Order: sequence, then structure tokens, then C-alpha cells
Amino acid sequence: MPEELRKGLEGVLVAESSLSDIDGSAGRLVYRGYAIEDLARNTSFEEVLYLLWEGHLPTESELEPFEAKMAEERAVREEVLSTVRELAAAEENPMAALRTAVSMLSAYDPDDSTGEAGDGEITQRKGRRITAKMPTIVAAYKRLRDGDEPIEPRTDLSHAANFLYMLNGEEPEDTIADVFDMALVVHADHGINASTFAAMVTASTLSDLHSSVTSAIGALKGDLHGGANQNVMRTLLEIDEHDLTAVEWAREALESGERIPGFGHRVYDVKDPRAKILGAKSKALGKAADEFKWYSYSRAIEEFMAKETGIAPNVDFYSASMYYQMGIPIDLYTPIFAMSRVGGWVAHVLEYQEDNRLIRPRARYVGPEDREFVRIDQR
Amino acid sequence: MPEELRKGLEGVLVAESSLSDIDGSAGRLVYRGYAIEDLARNTSFEEVLYLLWEGHLPTESELEPFEAKMAEERAVREEVLSTVRELAAAEENPMAALRTAVSMLSAYDPDDSTGEAGDGEITQRKGRRITAKMPTIVAAYKRLRDGDEPIEPRTDLSHAANFLYMLNGEEPEDTIADVFDMALVVHADHGINASTFAAMVTASTLSDLHSSVTSAIGALKGDLHGGANQNVMRTLLEIDEHDLTAVEWAREALESGERIPGFGHRVYDVKDPRAKILGAKSKALGKAADEFKWYSYSRAIEEFMAKETGIAPNVDFYSASMYYQMGIPIDLYTPIFAMSRVGGWVAHVLEYQEDNRLIRPRARYVGPEDREFVRIDQR
Repeated sequence: MPEELRKGLEGVLVAESSLSDIDGSAGRLVYRGYAIEDLARNTSFEEVLYLLWEGHLPTESELEPFEAKMAEERAVREEVLSTVRELAAAEENPMAALRTAVSMLSAYDPDDSTGEAGDGEITQRKGRRITAKMPTIVAAYKRLRDGDEPIEPRTDLSHAANFLYMLNGEEPEDTIADVFDMALVVHADHGINASTFAAMVTASTLSDLHSSVTSAIGALKGDLHGGANQNVMRTLLEIDEHDLTAVEWAREALESGERIPGFGHRVYDVKDPRAKILGAKSKALGKAADEFKWYSYSRAIEEFMAKETGIAPNVDFYSASMYYQMGIPIDLYTPIFAMSRVGGWVAHVLEYQEDNRLIRPRARYVGPEDREFVRIDQR
Repeated sequence: MPEELRKGLEGVLVAESSLSDIDGSAGRLVYRGYAIEDLARNTSFEEVLYLLWEGHLPTESELEPFEAKMAEERAVREEVLSTVRELAAAEENPMAALRTAVSMLSAYDPDDSTGEAGDGEITQRKGRRITAKMPTIVAAYKRLRDGDEPIEPRTDLSHAANFLYMLNGEEPEDTIADVFDMALVVHADHGINASTFAAMVTASTLSDLHSSVTSAIGALKGDLHGGANQNVMRTLLEIDEHDLTAVEWAREALESGERIPGFGHRVYDVKDPRAKILGAKSKALGKAADEFKWYSYSRAIEEFMAKETGIAPNVDFYSASMYYQMGIPIDLYTPIFAMSRVGGWVAHVLEYQEDNRLIRPRARYVGPEDREFVRIDQR
């Protein structure tokens, strides 16, 4: 019997995993068995990295050296910054700039970029370094593109606070750093999404971690994946500019058959639990700043969509207004997503290479058969 | 009924394709219906690119402007060469250097690196540029790492001849250029192999072509994929150095459970037709140079393996001795594979995005359920 075509691999099980589980009908997400709501409320991004990479939540005496090692790895070599400088001068797309810079990091990684693929300890060291350095690259890119000099990382701040410090040149308020940290926590892993799968396909050839993470950044860049959060914010700004109500805008978009960014997800039938967590934070930020419109627009679109289509918002829908209220430039939303999801990418590569199998599917050939070859002078 | 685990996606059909078809039991490979043997013997790499990207073999009046456009695109910007210079100085792995440099090309591509994903015309223009520039990057890397200055591409040579010219600083003999061109032809496409699939997963998010090709280079780098041809040559050199016969070496390797590089392929039960084509060329090169040992070692291993295991050589097995006899450094074999396979990567991205569907499989969750969260100070 001929195999069935599984385009998009919807529902196809490509691996066993202990990293995250999604119950799409209950709207439930866990990392290694812990509910995302508990982790978002109570843990730092560093704790979640430890959980994903080591398998358990750290004790204080496990977390402290882990944080210290991560903090030490934040600095990025001058050669890489010099390439980032060129990319900023060329006004490169920030995700493309991040892809190039992370790829370049491998040249300076103390572990060799050729051998040792499949050695979990080396992969984890590389993963720690890449994860530590990505915020430095993103912040440097933003500053250079704005005509400012990069700011060197500090080791006395958390991963989240240090990024905001390098981005803005001043230490963030604790409440803002906490919200940002929580955003990193909720984006860190999400099953075999497209970017994670790109990392796994690359890793399955026993290539090195920088190759996997570079693949994943390229995949996350797409509009159907990480690019969506930027489109949500552009929508909210369009509503604001055009003096439409959010519902009018959504109705028009729906009627003209446009895709409404931030809605629907292949694995959730109900509201994405991360959208609930981030929606609450977006609301709180609006309240604190006495500027409620971004949350209101979002909320109105959500209600309209629920009534008209039954489709619920996904993680991108509220992260947009949340980051916007934190003053983060829109085109950095996807690089920030990458700064978090790299935790999952590394964890999935570690897990997959422990019992590796080359990922090599097939296509159904539908092209011509047995064409007779004719030399070019007789065509 | 729970879904079956499809680790490695062996036999899973992820797409329909008209690009290449492999009959693994007949040992037959076609590109768009044309037998690889006919194409290897009679067409140039540029003709094959045209075939893959446009769907038919070009007439002379179609081929000429296509070749001219490709030749014009060979030059690489100073900014990118400057990064290649740094990578060479850091003794970066050549595939990693190629990954970084190709990623960086997007900053200078006349088509925008953000939008237009899924627009076939733009993707094809980008594909032509990337394909034209990859040999320039590989040759520049090799020269810089050897302490030589890069050589600017010429527009009056074929794609294959120009690469050898940039690599060595002198025009290759016609026979050598022809063999190299043929090697590019036979490596250009091969169904949904791991690097092509990495390109497709990335493209399926509607990311841009530079992201897809960067993903694919990262995947090709792995030992289970493009890295294998280098390992074949290292094996032949080891045999030569240790005064073992090839059969003695192969027997020892087999008995100690080592993997013999260049043997076996997931989709062929019989000898890979490309190994036949390249084996004949390796033999001819040996004859011409009156240096037969590399071919002889290879042939002896092939015969031994056939008798002992029934496993036949794959494409990597004879490309190794062929490139070696052309004086190409071993660590460039995989970048050269990339210079050819990029034709297939671009073609598969074009084909997949014509009727795109996000590639997002799932994992079977085997981790803990419902773990109770404990705050860090109570762990």
C-alpha cells in the first residue's frame, strides 16, 4: 500500500521527548512536568534553562555556579562585534544579523567546531555559551543600528536585567526586569515547533550545535513562526493610526480573508496558556503606565475573534503589546523570542543526539518519467 | 489509536516533488525524469541548475543569458570577504565559515531579506546569487587560510572552471574542469536528504532563502551527511600510511564494529549510480597521472564490502579519491558538495513554497507528569 502524504508532518511523531508537553484541548503546557503557570510565576529564566538542560529544578547551591558560569560567558569577541557593526551599517534584518553572528561564534568557541558532535557535555557547554551571548549580540546590533556604541555586559545582573541594561544603557526597574524574565521563561520550549525541528534535523546529521542553532534562528525568522509577534504589533499600530476601532479592523480583515496575526495554533484548540500569562502582564503594564489602549485593542480583537470564529490567541498575541509597553523596538521581538527559545533548541539537540537517528524523509515523485535526453545543440 | 513513532522519518512522505526520483532497488536516479548518467555525461552544471529551477533543459538561447547572469553574480562584497578573512585567521572549520559567509550575504542581496518570502521570482534571483557566490567564498577561504590573497572571479569561465581558477590561481586544464563540472552535476539533487529537508523546514515558516540555505549548510556539515566524503579520504590516507592492505584495514574496521565511511545509504539497496559515475572518473584520473593506488584501495574495499556485507558504496566513496587526485584539500570536499547541492536546496524551496505548509511535527511525551512545584528556597 502506498504511504500517505504527510505534508507539514501534522500529528507525525518524530521523537520521544521529556522536555515539554502540550495538551491542546486543555490549554496546558508543562516543561518536564511543571505547569508553565508555576514556572512563569516563580522561576527565573536561568532556573528554567537548568531544568531543561539538566532535567530537574536546581537547588540554590546548584543554581549559583550555573548562573555565574552563564554570566561569565556574556562577552562577545571583537571580531564578531565587528561583523555585527557591518550588518547594522547595511541595515540587515535583525534576525538575519543574529543568524550570521551566532554562526560566527563557533569560530571562537573553546570547543572545536568540527568534532565531538553528539558529545552531550560539549554540546551543553556550547549551548550555555551561545545562550549567554545572544542577548549581547541583539543589544549590540540595536545600539549600532541606532548609531550608539555597544554596552559591555555586566556579570552582576540576571540574564534578563543585563539584556535590558545593554539595550538601554541603564539598569531596568525590578518590575520590568521581572516581566521580561517571565517572557523568557514562557517562550523557552514548546514541543517540536518548526525552529526546534530545524535544529533537530541539522543535529541528526551529527553536525555541531552552532549549525543547529543557526538553522533554528533561520526558521524562527519566518512569518508563520517567530515573525508573527512583530505583525501583531504592526496591526495594533495600524488600528491606532487609522482611527478604526479594533473590532472594525478585525471585521474588515476577516471579511477580506486576511490572516489575523497572533491567532490560531496548530496544537491548541483553546487559548494558549502563554497568551493568558502574557495578557495579564500586558494589562498590568498598561495599568502601571496609565496607557491602556494597547491592551484594550488586543482584548477587543480577542473577544471579537472568539465570537466570530472561535479561534483563540496564541503566545504572540499579547507578547506584542507587552514588549511595546516596555519600549522595545518591534523588530527585536523575534530576536528576543530566539534569546529564549535557544534554551529549548539546545535541550532538544541534547536529547535527540543521545539516541540519534538521521532525519531523512522522502517525497512522492510526481515529475516526468523516463524523459529522453537530447543534447543542447539539438534542443 | 496512538500514532506510531517515526524516528528519522524513514519512508515518511513529506511532500510531492518533481525534482528528483530515486529507485533504490534499481540504483536509478533521475532529475526531472532525465537519467543521472545522461546528465553527467552531456550537461554542464549550469544546464542542470536551469533544469532544476525552470523545469526543462535549456536551449542554447535560454542557457546563454542564464550563464551570463550567473557569471556576473560571482563577486563577493568586501565586507563578507573581510569576515571570511577573520574566520580563516581563526582557523574556523570550512563548512562553518561557509555557513557564516552565506548567512552574511543576505545583508547585501538587492532583494530584501525580510519580506517577499514565498515569492518564487525573488527566491530564484536570490538562489542564483547565492549559487554564483559560494565558490568565490570557498576559494577565498582556502587561499586566506593558506596565507594567500583571494583571486577575483572571472566571467569568461564556466562555473566549474572559474572555481578551480580562483582556488589555484591558474586556469584548469579542460579535462580537469570537465570532471569537476560533472561532480557538481551528480551532487546537485537527491530527493529529501537531510540538508534539503533542513532547508524546507526553514522555508516552511516563510523565512527567506538565505535562512534556508544557511540551515542546509549546517546540516550538510554533519558526519552522517556531507561530512562523510572527507572521512573516506582520511581512511584511504590511513591505509596508505600504515602499510596495511585496504582489505586488511576494512576487515579490522568491520570486526571492531567501526563505521566504514562511504558505504550504505538509507535509500539505496544496490550501488549508488553516482558512485559508478564517480568511480569511473577516479579511475581515469589515476590512469592519466599514472598513480593508481587511490582508486585501487577504493576498489579493493568495495569488493571486500560486497562479499562480506553486501553493502555497496555511496556517492561519497569515489568522490573522495577523485577530488584528492585533483589536488583539492580534503576539508574542502564538503564545501564543494554544498556548492553543488545548493542547486537542489533552492529548487526544493521554490517547489515547497509554491504550496507551502508549515512543517511542525510532534513528539511523544515520555517525561514526568504533574510534578508539584516547589520554590527554590524549599528545594
